[in-house]
Amino acid sequence: MYKVYGMSLSGNCHKIRMVLDHLAQPYEWIETDIGQGASRTPEFLSRNPVGKVPVLELPDGRYLSESNAIIQYLANGSPLWPSDRFEQADTLKWMFFEQNRHEPSVAEARYIKLFLPADSPRLKELPGKHKTGNEAFSVMEQRLLESDFLVTSRCNVADIALFAYTHVAEEGGFDMSGYPAIAGWIERILELPGFTRMVAQHGL
Amino acid sequence: MYKVYGMSLSGNCHKIRMVLDHLAQPYEWIETDIGQGASRTPEFLSRNPVGKVPVLELPDGRYLSESNAIIQYLANGSPLWPSDRFEQADTLKWMFFEQNRHEPSVAEARYIKLFLPADSPRLKELPGKHKTGNEAFSVMEQRLLESDFLVTSRCNVADIALFAYTHVAEEGGFDMSGYPAIAGWIERILELPGFTRMVAQHGL
Repeated sequence: MYKVYGMSLSGNCHKIRMVLDHLAQPYEWIETDIGQGASRTPEFLSRNPVGKVPVLELPDGRYLSESNAIIQYLANGSPLWPSDRFEQADTLKWMFFEQNRHEPSVAEARYIKLFLPADSPRLKELPGKHKTGNEAFSVMEQRLLESDFLVTSRCNVADIALFAYTHVAEEGGFDMSGYPAIAGWIERILELPGFTRMVAQHGL
Repeated sequence: MYKVYGMSLSGNCHKIRMVLDHLAQPYEWIETDIGQGASRTPEFLSRNPVGKVPVLELPDGRYLSESNAIIQYLANGSPLWPSDRFEQADTLKWMFFEQNRHEPSVAEARYIKLFLPADSPRLKELPGKHKTGNEAFSVMEQRLLESDFLVTSRCNVADIALFAYTHVAEEGGFDMSGYPAIAGWIERILELPGFTRMVAQHGL
């Protein structure tokens, strides 16, 4: 059985849960509170030298890190990963876009708003994060005005990668009212088996 | 024939050149100076709505963006892309690490040092970029002390993705003398056919 070292309040970790639940794969979730240093212990660093969650432990004991690499691994061979060579690369295009442009803005804004004290000096980063995050949302909105999902007409791992922090963007102070196509896409994803909102939206 | 819209001074663009040259694929390089706004024209945005280089144009007219997605596409079916499912995901792990942790530190530091005026307010970002960049180099060094290349004993697209900005890190003010395993890896990559240093290192 797979083991997932993850933090339930993290969108990157929520991606793993969504794919495993959607594919009805059994797994053990090991809650790992990075705020308490649980990802910086020598034992954890032997699993992922970067010291970050999520980490997937395979039944044979091998480890895999980086959320989008993990969901690509889990999806490979299922309808969540396309078989066409160009569609595979186009799926990865959105996933790299997510890690390079979307996550550093959208996830970071949420982190600053939700997890840092109200007098944190990092609060001054929020306007910049909102600017670059809205640029990312505009690119997604433009695509979703012409297609039900990001790569093809069906949901795949690129949608899951971008759903994770987009569906809780308001928690980072984003006004999502100007993105109706993104709103429709979020609803379409939530209608599919195993895909759920992140607990943080209810819990905080 | 492939067309590549790229800027020769960009490490992300240099990745594409390396893979095409290594695989002896003919291509047309269309120099695109993002500093002069060439990636923000309506025509360019129709190729890549994100407004960034590189962009690959396929012989059939389709476009692909995000450097690591492009090199995955080009490498697929060649020895630069592994056939094993876990090795594929492990390759992507390093490529996501590159776009999320390495490039925002190492490439950005080089951009600030090489391309911005000496009185730019962004110069104050350099110490932070050097700290996170050195964290990324430490992870690479640890891996390269035990393996000739990042994923397996042979070079693949993950090595190319991380080589691009690592081999010109000094241009961003990094002291690389503490990373002997990285230095050896750079030399091993440069011994392979078609793999070259970026012109910027000579031209600036």
